[in-house]
Amino acid sequence: MSRLDTFIRRLQAQRLCLDALADRLQGLPGPVLELGLGNGRTYDHLRERFPGRPIFVFDRQVAAHPDCIPPADQLRLGDFRETLPAYAAEGQPPAVLIHADIGSGDKAASMQLAADLAPSWARILAPGGFLASDQAVEHPLWTPVPLPPGVDAGRYHLYCREN
Amino acid sequence: MSRLDTFIRRLQAQRLCLDALADRLQGLPGPVLELGLGNGRTYDHLRERFPGRPIFVFDRQVAAHPDCIPPADQLRLGDFRETLPAYAAEGQPPAVLIHADIGSGDKAASMQLAADLAPSWARILAPGGFLASDQAVEHPLWTPVPLPPGVDAGRYHLYCREN
Repeated sequence: MSRLDTFIRRLQAQRLCLDALADRLQGLPGPVLELGLGNGRTYDHLRERFPGRPIFVFDRQVAAHPDCIPPADQLRLGDFRETLPAYAAEGQPPAVLIHADIGSGDKAASMQLAADLAPSWARILAPGGFLASDQAVEHPLWTPVPLPPGVDAGRYHLYCREN
Repeated sequence: MSRLDTFIRRLQAQRLCLDALADRLQGLPGPVLELGLGNGRTYDHLRERFPGRPIFVFDRQVAAHPDCIPPADQLRLGDFRETLPAYAAEGQPPAVLIHADIGSGDKAASMQLAADLAPSWARILAPGGFLASDQAVEHPLWTPVPLPPGVDAGRYHLYCREN
């Protein structure tokens, strides 16, 4: 399997997970959080699948396509380790979905980042809300959720905050 | 359709085209040319699908994953408009495949770039060889080839040099 094959599978897995959660979260109010704007492709997909909800976007800087730049009041720029705790202290409504596509080429550093952010995510996530992450991350508040059909085990990770 | 949807379709179209050409080009000797290394995902795919052939890679600089960096003697760094004519003058064996994923966000500039490079491609391509491009590009030496099943019209472009 080439890196092109792997990349396509990862994007398909991401999309399948987000689409499945969009269905499951209908009727549960609350904002969505997107960690990592990048070129804005996934943000654009979230806008389509979660219409009418605020989508708060976290990244170091804005480098997205001009059509995919969030409104300024929904952007939180800086290091995740600073912007997530600051957001958690803002008093926004609990989030129904946190999407964390935060992996870099360094697997150990990526897992450590997810572990460092987990306490903030736990503060932010609504009961019944979901965390979709490219990194496995444990926390007493959430439990793993089976992946949608077509997503290979380990390629993405879904967790639900039960209550 | 979101930008994520569009991106996945474009990558799938690229892969379907390259896989189809790998089948059709078995038995015809000659190198492959890859225009645009980027992170090296498609180069990695070409290595898998065209084993044993030299793959000459053209880009402004090397910014690929360490596992996907071509050997130095198969790298041609600089502006395509300079490196392609220079390569054509090297006297390498005629190429069986030129893969040109050269589009930028500027459609007019991308089409102009393809038109500017077409004379060099025509010099480089072997009789029976193919050009696979993300840009439509006409030249007396080649004719359009039907796209493989699953590839939407206009998403990729295939041409064959008949003789």
